[in-house]
Amino acid sequence: MRGYTFYERVSRAFHDYSSLSKLIVISTVGGGSLIAYSEANASSDAYSVAPPEMGIKKKKVVVLGTGWAGTSFLKNLNNPSYDVQVISPRNYFAFTPLLPSVTCGTVEARSIVEPVRNIVRKKNVDICFWEAECFKIDAENKKVYCRSSQNTNLNGKEEFCMDYDYLVIAMGARANTFNTPGVEENCNFLKEVEDAQRIRRNVIESFEKASLPNLSDEERKRILHFVIVGGGPTGVEFAAELHDFVDEDLFKLYPKVKDSVKITLLEAADHILNMFDKRITAFAEEKFSRDGIDVKLGSMVVKVTDKEIFTKVRGNGETSSMPYGMVVWSTGIAPHAIIKDFMKQVGQTNRRALATDEWLRVEGSDSIYALGDCATVNQRRVMEDIAAIFSKADKDNSGTLTVKEFQEVIKDICERYPQVELYLKNKKMGDFGDLLKEAKGDVAQDAVELNIEEFKKALSEVDSQMKNLPATAQVAAQQGKYLAKCFNRMEEAEKNPEGPLRFRGTGRHRFQPFRYQHLGQFAPLGGEQTAAQLPWDWVSIGRSSQWLWYSVYTSKLVSWRTRALVVSDWTRRFIFGRDSSGI
Amino acid sequence: MRGYTFYERVSRAFHDYSSLSKLIVISTVGGGSLIAYSEANASSDAYSVAPPEMGIKKKKVVVLGTGWAGTSFLKNLNNPSYDVQVISPRNYFAFTPLLPSVTCGTVEARSIVEPVRNIVRKKNVDICFWEAECFKIDAENKKVYCRSSQNTNLNGKEEFCMDYDYLVIAMGARANTFNTPGVEENCNFLKEVEDAQRIRRNVIESFEKASLPNLSDEERKRILHFVIVGGGPTGVEFAAELHDFVDEDLFKLYPKVKDSVKITLLEAADHILNMFDKRITAFAEEKFSRDGIDVKLGSMVVKVTDKEIFTKVRGNGETSSMPYGMVVWSTGIAPHAIIKDFMKQVGQTNRRALATDEWLRVEGSDSIYALGDCATVNQRRVMEDIAAIFSKADKDNSGTLTVKEFQEVIKDICERYPQVELYLKNKKMGDFGDLLKEAKGDVAQDAVELNIEEFKKALSEVDSQMKNLPATAQVAAQQGKYLAKCFNRMEEAEKNPEGPLRFRGTGRHRFQPFRYQHLGQFAPLGGEQTAAQLPWDWVSIGRSSQWLWYSVYTSKLVSWRTRALVVSDWTRRFIFGRDSSGI
Repeated sequence: MRGYTFYERVSRAFHDYSSLSKLIVISTVGGGSLIAYSEANASSDAYSVAPPEMGIKKKKVVVLGTGWAGTSFLKNLNNPSYDVQVISPRNYFAFTPLLPSVTCGTVEARSIVEPVRNIVRKKNVDICFWEAECFKIDAENKKVYCRSSQNTNLNGKEEFCMDYDYLVIAMGARANTFNTPGVEENCNFLKEVEDAQRIRRNVIESFEKASLPNLSDEERKRILHFVIVGGGPTGVEFAAELHDFVDEDLFKLYPKVKDSVKITLLEAADHILNMFDKRITAFAEEKFSRDGIDVKLGSMVVKVTDKEIFTKVRGNGETSSMPYGMVVWSTGIAPHAIIKDFMKQVGQTNRRALATDEWLRVEGSDSIYALGDCATVNQRRVMEDIAAIFSKADKDNSGTLTVKEFQEVIKDICERYPQVELYLKNKKMGDFGDLLKEAKGDVAQDAVELNIEEFKKALSEVDSQMKNLPATAQVAAQQGKYLAKCFNRMEEAEKNPEGPLRFRGTGRHRFQPFRYQHLGQFAPLGGEQTAAQLPWDWVSIGRSSQWLWYSVYTSKLVSWRTRALVVSDWTRRFIFGRDSSGI
Repeated sequence: MRGYTFYERVSRAFHDYSSLSKLIVISTVGGGSLIAYSEANASSDAYSVAPPEMGIKKKKVVVLGTGWAGTSFLKNLNNPSYDVQVISPRNYFAFTPLLPSVTCGTVEARSIVEPVRNIVRKKNVDICFWEAECFKIDAENKKVYCRSSQNTNLNGKEEFCMDYDYLVIAMGARANTFNTPGVEENCNFLKEVEDAQRIRRNVIESFEKASLPNLSDEERKRILHFVIVGGGPTGVEFAAELHDFVDEDLFKLYPKVKDSVKITLLEAADHILNMFDKRITAFAEEKFSRDGIDVKLGSMVVKVTDKEIFTKVRGNGETSSMPYGMVVWSTGIAPHAIIKDFMKQVGQTNRRALATDEWLRVEGSDSIYALGDCATVNQRRVMEDIAAIFSKADKDNSGTLTVKEFQEVIKDICERYPQVELYLKNKKMGDFGDLLKEAKGDVAQDAVELNIEEFKKALSEVDSQMKNLPATAQVAAQQGKYLAKCFNRMEEAEKNPEGPLRFRGTGRHRFQPFRYQHLGQFAPLGGEQTAAQLPWDWVSIGRSSQWLWYSVYTSKLVSWRTRALVVSDWTRRFIFGRDSSGI
């Protein structure tokens, strides 16, 4: 035994009591005058469940993927009656909204990642992590087949197979090339941490390459032509970051090639950021034009060679080509090969992602859940179930629905079919009564009685409100949290279902269906300007939104370590600028 | 024109007046109670020279390499009469003494690098940087041939040729494999930043690999067997870092494989750290044995396959083999291929590095200098010049040297042949007189008179004191600074030579020869324990040396940015531990 010195004691205190280190970090972060607020901790959740009796075999849950959905699921799962196996080719969670910042060194790659083992280490649930890639899902036998993604030198022992009772698929998606020739070979993507690191090196190498002595002006201009394909949030943010990096840091170090730099943003639609409010789009386009970023709208990429990119103008079909030095391709997502393969297994051949019901269960499978970018919630249409709804509501089997009968099922209908509520809201109707009145004409509400045809008519348009959820971190995180809460209460809900009425069938659904709550979205536009689209259509643009962005992103980071690192990265950038070493 | 907001003004102030940011950093660093002292700035050097007259063609200096020697040369060069071209395959300078810390994430790679363009940007000398690799030196025509080290896609235009008036070779060296079979293919080296990053990933991947389900215990032990070949400062520091990383951070996250981890350090000699004081060696060996690091002394590696490493015991020649998961090879240096090629050109075929004279000029070439790890200073022997010294000293050509005659050349002899002074010091002789007295026997000093044979005898043993300089950052940095000062005063020294007498020839040497001043050396041993061998044979071991190490390394870092980053890395490690994400 050896005695501890003061130094060791302090050091140990920090490691053992993380709250102590939080305190330190808060005071550090506070120094940067950053309003950091923290998400309520999942462990203080009301859904905690008594430990299972000894001897009961734990249900085996296999989670594929450690992105937003998978990690959020793991963070929120706190029912110790599961035996959880997590399989992912990466042993860390990456805070992807900061990936564009990593491409130019505003934030370091390591500041936005957190080891999965660290995230799950202190949980009361048995969670085992395996760094491997799942290459086959055998739904029939409830098995997944995996393989270490490293060069293992293990003669086949790197492959293994895992049973499951529940499978949670949260593998994300890959970049969508739309099968455009040459994209796979010549373009950079921006999905993974490695992509962002590669882009950073490529930008700096482009400047070094363009500084070589034997080049013609034309060649130099080609090398320093940066093309971004896709005017979505990622593409736009990368373009803005790149512009700032070049303008604030690289021009100082490479003054001779300054005039040869060009940034072009290609967007196939009529506007960039077209999922945002028009004011934001207009501001972004105007700012980019002022910054000298060439935004080409209605411009579709048809081919990419090693030095040229070919585009077609959407209106007139004219094609033209531009020489380029580097392309970043960011035009949306497509399913991974294994998801495609699995979709075939479950008979979902024509879909862009794995379809699930509103409880995130893969359609046609009871024990498999899918969430995040690899999945899409297939919201059930009211019209599909209209007869069942009618007969369930018509308690006296009179063939007509009275308002009273109707009011008894309104809540369940709204819970089960959220589009109904959306429709009412958009039509500015106070409640269901208005809808019925509209269908029936101007009658006193109490006297309204509808037959099935009139009922159909009244609800005929509500399904038009159905929208696919966007493929964002926010959706994935909420889905993960939702599913974890369902798993936490699985046994209890089996006995006391808490969901809406089953219109086709008897009893109630076990859980409320998943509901996405949009908390707003940011679009950083460079030069300390950010556009923010907040709930209730609030729009905020400018420096204040940039500070809001700093605060929200800091608070949303997964650990105190990453928070401290990201804030110190921002501070470093502010004081010293971005680094341009080619590593 | 747009007005500046407060924010922009502050931000600009930071960028434009770096002293402001230094102030900020000092107060930050001060908070960590770190005694940081800074090297005297080269720009306030006494050797500054008036700008050359207009119209005079500047001398073209080509510098190959941006390691310690090259960067130190560039930092200290301040005579604007040169046109300097710097060629290096890396556009940054790396603070290599912290590389072992990078291997385990104690310090981030980016924290120890500084872009060369940043270092030379604000100098008053025309310095141009080219990111390229020199692949041929044509000394006859005074040209170097270079090629961009990237995948350039430029159809040959990535090659270029550069003329020079002076060439400064500072390309460093590569790891020495002693042609041991399998080393090149299967071992990790630790020379470059990329090597350190690769080792870090490999360590974490080893733990992930060892956690896979299908492995036998034996296989798991193999994967987690880390072997370090070479018990020099780098190998020892890496072993210590690895032990701390595993012990302090990885065991928590990988508790199941804890018992399978083993670290072995192989050293061919009788002791590790054998260039250090015996007390340090003993302490290090004892500490390692306590830490469970298996130190195998007298153990030579004869072959490495993909899973096994074969060693031979030096005494009895017995060979044995060990299965391993990862090998780090750190057994000294060998010249790069291009240096070997150049050595052939200048007729130095049998040497381990490019030989220079004491003024760092490549032997047999007047306009080429070599410094750092790629070169070795070929100290001239007194015995070679003994006749010349005698005749020069014997002013009256009497065939004997009087003490008076002798005293007139003593200073020059000591300057030209530093081994003489060393010899006197080691023999505990006060001055030259004692040496002569020893040769001549007990005579009154004034009466001593020596003929050539007696003179030879007196000095016969001084050459035994000659030692090759170690291949360290310290030597390289001092050489770079020395050479820059020579270049700064080149014209002036041509007119007023300031070196010692030329014993073979007339007049004086232009400059004092290079003299290495050993400032001490550290050997971090892990667990916040460092051994330090300071000048005058002071030895300090323990935590206090660790803090000295922190202070010295902070002060020696190349920029305020890297200082701030390294200190914040240390702080982060102290609070949050090291990251284990596989990136």
